[in-house]
Amino acid sequence: MEKVDILVCNDDGIDAPGINALVNALKDIANITVVAPDRQQSAVGHALTLSSPLRAVPFHKDGELFGYAINGTPADCVKIGLSGLIKKKPDFVISGINHGQNTAVNILYSGTVSAATEGYLSGIKSIAFSLASHDYDADFSVAMKFVKRIVKNLISNKYDENYLLNVNIPYTNEREIKGIKIVHHSDTVWKDKYEKRKDPFNREYYWFAGEYNIVNEDPDSDDNALQNNYVTITPLQFQITDFDKIEKIKFLEDK
Amino acid sequence: MEKVDILVCNDDGIDAPGINALVNALKDIANITVVAPDRQQSAVGHALTLSSPLRAVPFHKDGELFGYAINGTPADCVKIGLSGLIKKKPDFVISGINHGQNTAVNILYSGTVSAATEGYLSGIKSIAFSLASHDYDADFSVAMKFVKRIVKNLISNKYDENYLLNVNIPYTNEREIKGIKIVHHSDTVWKDKYEKRKDPFNREYYWFAGEYNIVNEDPDSDDNALQNNYVTITPLQFQITDFDKIEKIKFLEDK
Repeated sequence: MEKVDILVCNDDGIDAPGINALVNALKDIANITVVAPDRQQSAVGHALTLSSPLRAVPFHKDGELFGYAINGTPADCVKIGLSGLIKKKPDFVISGINHGQNTAVNILYSGTVSAATEGYLSGIKSIAFSLASHDYDADFSVAMKFVKRIVKNLISNKYDENYLLNVNIPYTNEREIKGIKIVHHSDTVWKDKYEKRKDPFNREYYWFAGEYNIVNEDPDSDDNALQNNYVTITPLQFQITDFDKIEKIKFLEDK
Repeated sequence: MEKVDILVCNDDGIDAPGINALVNALKDIANITVVAPDRQQSAVGHALTLSSPLRAVPFHKDGELFGYAINGTPADCVKIGLSGLIKKKPDFVISGINHGQNTAVNILYSGTVSAATEGYLSGIKSIAFSLASHDYDADFSVAMKFVKRIVKNLISNKYDENYLLNVNIPYTNEREIKGIKIVHHSDTVWKDKYEKRKDPFNREYYWFAGEYNIVNEDPDSDDNALQNNYVTITPLQFQITDFDKIEKIKFLEDK
C-alpha cells in the first residue's frame, strides 16, 4: 500500500499523549504532518482566531521534529496547515486521539471535531478520534489498533466521496470490545449546573459542574453503543437548517 | 399584551451598540435580563469555559443596571444565566444584534448563534439576530423595527413548539428592504488565506485573510436572499448525523 499524506491535529495540545498515539498508529501507512495547538484547547468548539497574529513554531519530541505548534485553536491549526504551511494537499485530516469521548451534543463543543470539520469543509476526507477516558495517562494501545484498522479500511476500500467521520472508542480491554458500529449521534444534552463558590477575597465565582445523563436508549446511537463497548462511527454534515420548521414558521414571512 | 421574560446575550460584548439596540427594541414588550460577555467574543464558536472560574459582575449604562458581564463566552453566559443567575426561566433567549451577518458556515463560528443555541438546547425558544454590517457605529434603527416585529409576531401567533431561529437583517434603508423571507442556510464556505508577515523582530506570523465568496444562487438560501435585501429567517437544529452516508460506510462495520 502506498503511503497517504495526513495532516494530524488535536485539541489537547501538541504535547498530549493522545496525539502521540495517533501519530504512532498511522506512521507505517502515512506521511504525517502534525499541526496542533501549543496548549490545551478542550471545549473551544469551532473558535477561530481573527484578531491576533498566529505563529507556527517547530515542536520537537525525543530530539526529532514532531510537528508545528500554533498559538491558536484546533480550527486555526487546520486552516493554517492547509493554507500554506503544508505544500501538498493531504489525503486526510485526522484529529485526536482526544482524551474523552465526543458524542451527541459534545460534538458541538469539541475542538477535536472542529479540526476535522475544517478539513471536511476544505474538501478533504476527515476523521475525529476520541477515547472514552479523560485520564491523561490513559492506555491508548487498544484505540491505536482501531485507528489504524479504520484508516486502512477506508484507504483499501477506495471510498472516494468526501466525508467527516466522528469515531469514539470505549476505554476497556480489547476482548471486551464488541466491534465497530455505524451509528447516528444521540440527542443527549448536558444538565447544566454551576457551583457558586467564594474566592480567598470572599468574591463569588461560578464553576461549571454540569451532568451528562444519557437518556437515549436507542442502540443505534453513539452514546448507547459506546456504553455497550462498541467502537462507534458517526458520519457528520453541516446543513443544519431545520427543514421541517420552514413551513411551520411561514406566518413570519411577508406576503 | 402581557410582557414576556427574555434573557439577552451577544458576542460583541456587553458594551457593544448592538446589544443596546436589541434591549431598546424589546423593552416595551419584555422584562429583559442581560447576561453577556465582558469583552468581544466574535468567532468563538461554541466554546465553553470549563477550567477557570467565571464571574458575574453587574454592569451599568447611563447610571442604571444594564445587566451582568461575564468573563466568558456567549455560551457560558446563557448557561450561567439559566442555571441560577436568573431565578425564573425566561420565555425567550435572544442574542445580538450582532455586528456582521451570520449566514451559511459562519453559523458554525458564530458566538451570537451559539448563545441562542444554548437557550434552544435548554428547551427555551431562542433567536439570534445579526445585522449585515461590521461597522461599530452602524445604524441599528431599521434592524430594531424588524426585531420587534418578529418577536411580537412569534408571541401573538402563540407558536409553541421549541425553536431556534437565525435572523439576518440587510444593512440598508427601510424602503430598500423587500420583506421577511424564510430560507435555508446556504453552503458557502470561506476560501482560506493567511497573510504571512514579519514582526518587528523579523519573526514570521500569520494573519487570517480569507475570502467569503457567495456561490449559492438559490434564492431560498440565506446568503442570496440577504444580498437581495430580504430579512432572512432560518430555523436551525442540531442533529448533524449525515444519514445518507450511514449505509455507504457500512463496509467499516464489523459483521
